[in-house]
Amino acid sequence: MGKWSRRRAAPSLADVAGNGLIDRRAVLGGGIAVAGAASAAAVATGAAAEPLTDAPWSLQYGAFPQPVQPRSPYEKDVVRALSNPNGEFRTSHGRTPHQLLGGTVTPNELHFSINHGGIPDIDPAQHKLVIHGMVRQPLEFTLETLSRYPLVTRMAFVECAGNSAGMFSKVPLQATVGLLHGLVSNAEWTGVPLSVLLDEAGVDPAAKWLVAEGADAQFLDRSVPVKKAYDDALVAIYQNGEHLMPGNGYPMRLLLPGYQGNMNVKYLRRIKVVNQPTYSYFETKNYSQILPGGKTWRFHFVMEVKSFITHPSFGTNLKEPGLYAISGVAYSGTGRIAKVMVSADGGKSWGEAALQGPLHDKAFTRFVMPWRWDGQPAVLMSRAFDDGGNVQPLRAEFVAMRGEASKPVASPLAFPNQHYNSTTSWAIDSKGEVSHVYA
Amino acid sequence: MGKWSRRRAAPSLADVAGNGLIDRRAVLGGGIAVAGAASAAAVATGAAAEPLTDAPWSLQYGAFPQPVQPRSPYEKDVVRALSNPNGEFRTSHGRTPHQLLGGTVTPNELHFSINHGGIPDIDPAQHKLVIHGMVRQPLEFTLETLSRYPLVTRMAFVECAGNSAGMFSKVPLQATVGLLHGLVSNAEWTGVPLSVLLDEAGVDPAAKWLVAEGADAQFLDRSVPVKKAYDDALVAIYQNGEHLMPGNGYPMRLLLPGYQGNMNVKYLRRIKVVNQPTYSYFETKNYSQILPGGKTWRFHFVMEVKSFITHPSFGTNLKEPGLYAISGVAYSGTGRIAKVMVSADGGKSWGEAALQGPLHDKAFTRFVMPWRWDGQPAVLMSRAFDDGGNVQPLRAEFVAMRGEASKPVASPLAFPNQHYNSTTSWAIDSKGEVSHVYA
Repeated sequence: MGKWSRRRAAPSLADVAGNGLIDRRAVLGGGIAVAGAASAAAVATGAAAEPLTDAPWSLQYGAFPQPVQPRSPYEKDVVRALSNPNGEFRTSHGRTPHQLLGGTVTPNELHFSINHGGIPDIDPAQHKLVIHGMVRQPLEFTLETLSRYPLVTRMAFVECAGNSAGMFSKVPLQATVGLLHGLVSNAEWTGVPLSVLLDEAGVDPAAKWLVAEGADAQFLDRSVPVKKAYDDALVAIYQNGEHLMPGNGYPMRLLLPGYQGNMNVKYLRRIKVVNQPTYSYFETKNYSQILPGGKTWRFHFVMEVKSFITHPSFGTNLKEPGLYAISGVAYSGTGRIAKVMVSADGGKSWGEAALQGPLHDKAFTRFVMPWRWDGQPAVLMSRAFDDGGNVQPLRAEFVAMRGEASKPVASPLAFPNQHYNSTTSWAIDSKGEVSHVYA
Repeated sequence: MGKWSRRRAAPSLADVAGNGLIDRRAVLGGGIAVAGAASAAAVATGAAAEPLTDAPWSLQYGAFPQPVQPRSPYEKDVVRALSNPNGEFRTSHGRTPHQLLGGTVTPNELHFSINHGGIPDIDPAQHKLVIHGMVRQPLEFTLETLSRYPLVTRMAFVECAGNSAGMFSKVPLQATVGLLHGLVSNAEWTGVPLSVLLDEAGVDPAAKWLVAEGADAQFLDRSVPVKKAYDDALVAIYQNGEHLMPGNGYPMRLLLPGYQGNMNVKYLRRIKVVNQPTYSYFETKNYSQILPGGKTWRFHFVMEVKSFITHPSFGTNLKEPGLYAISGVAYSGTGRIAKVMVSADGGKSWGEAALQGPLHDKAFTRFVMPWRWDGQPAVLMSRAFDDGGNVQPLRAEFVAMRGEASKPVASPLAFPNQHYNSTTSWAIDSKGEVSHVYA
């Protein structure tokens, strides 16, 4: 190196697991050299002799700012995958394209949504939330009155119980992360603790359940344990700083961190305090996980510990051997992510990934693992561990406990079952093409 | 209460400071009752006898999800204030409407932007970043090669050095928070640590500065100490999970957490490693703070500790006496917010606000203070303290140190000086109208 020294001690770039996984401390230290940049360096060296050409956009005054600033036209393919693009009168899903995103926040316009009766166009000045039932005093709230309460802000993922259902298929479906795992998103939510509103109404100690009901065309209703309401439930009115998106419950929704998405009732209009669950359609028919043997748990609310690799993944092939970052998201409905282990050899050996902190309870954690791809076939996997001791199951473990689809699964848009959370494996062939495999 | 007990012990609702400030622990506990909700309770009680009417949007199938989901049409006034709405060929500002937002994240379409030469329409496949100058090996990077590095994710505010410049006026300007303080926003940024790229290029130990240059029509350039580059600088490629907004530097920008916005060079195309600053236009003419006596610091990079109340604030009047939450944002370019004190009596007494955690370094912290307004005149103030011992100055303290405008300031869009960070005071009169005062 001579005089061209590094400014800080370079961490070890030694492999920590098979097939080129590098110590995660290399994320912040020196010594990382991406092949693409290094090979381009020759161009830059040449360019030092002849001046760089100015790009056409540098040679004219650009566009003017807009009141609501738009995305780049070059990002036009960064969109949600729709399950009902022709607008038939049925359930419609919009899936988040995680393979095209970074960090942990899902931008609002790409947050996933599921609407069983379409998206109501609610006038927030007319919308009311009523808390009634086994209470001392029924209460009515508007967006304006809720806004006057001391609000709480937190990160939280929301995940449909049917997310990743395509992985119940006996053969791995070839599909992007967005299609396989796009029914989960992560946002900063701000709202009133439900406990504050319930205390104001005065809850009968004999009450054990709430029935939350939305103002959509289905009056979608779900039963929620009173205990969860007093734990960390919010009536959320802001999503990533602004009022909720219409697809996500505008002007107010229930937020039950870590509980299946459907219970986070959108367009919230009534909370009835009761002493038993209501056994509504969506808690008895949909969103029940059928177990091997044909039984189901009566209720299975928590979305269990999970992770998936977003980069590289199906649809984003590697161009050449060299250094890459394996990156993805991990989350758990029971708490914080404690660690994420990554394998590049199909689970034979594992190295611990770097986590992007601070680590939020029941929210996305981004993990990153430096990886030197030697051009040989590899199988990438991630496995999440939470602070409650829960471990994301391997696929074989999951199938042994929870089963798989008995019939062929036509597409990742199908829902053969619910609550899928095993590891996902991406195979890289010698040409750098990525495919979905079961490892 | 009888059988209608609370589920948790109610915290004290005793005043902790003058004019109705309530213990911050009431944020999470019971005992909070907003007057609006309570008075509406009579309606709800009546409604229990006759069924609630279903709103029209509940009686028909709603809208279909879109690939990029839109905001509610009822949010059409939640927009950035533009300084150059008619598109003249000059600097254009878009200010964040903080008085209409909650939480800490600024949604991307409302992030502030300043463009001195318009917003370039950059093709990310053609854009290149070159690191050259006093390096062992010049390097060239594209968005694609940067994406292969292990990326780091963090929250950070970006603030224009000219934010709040209207408060240099000798008389308080009557304007919204967005107009007064809207040149600061907060986002989750994801990118490559600049130290990694510099180490790859190999920096000459004699080099003390970088000159960062953008690909906009001005080739906007700023000098950055090498020390800052090795501290926490990023070349950011994601903003709240998606690629950068065009107004905020698409496809790549420098992120220097806590340093004045203009130094966070957008459309980053060159980083030249040098041994002295370049004394460019924006570091010698614009963005220099003129001190009393007419001198200026040669460089003043850090945006100092600051806070402002967003709710209530100018333009959002109070309808009736009762319980409210005083809420706002606090941040410091030197570290974390340690506490925020709030006054309702113009600074005579102060109570400590609740902070929404986790508390991020050099990022927005939302503070909340429950407040019982008795209908009498009040003056609301917030004052931030950071973990480095820095205290936001009162206005009189600030003016004594840094001066105020000698001539009348026509509007909050003017920039009589730079780096304003004193407290902001909102007076509430007996009708509930909010005005800007100096207290």
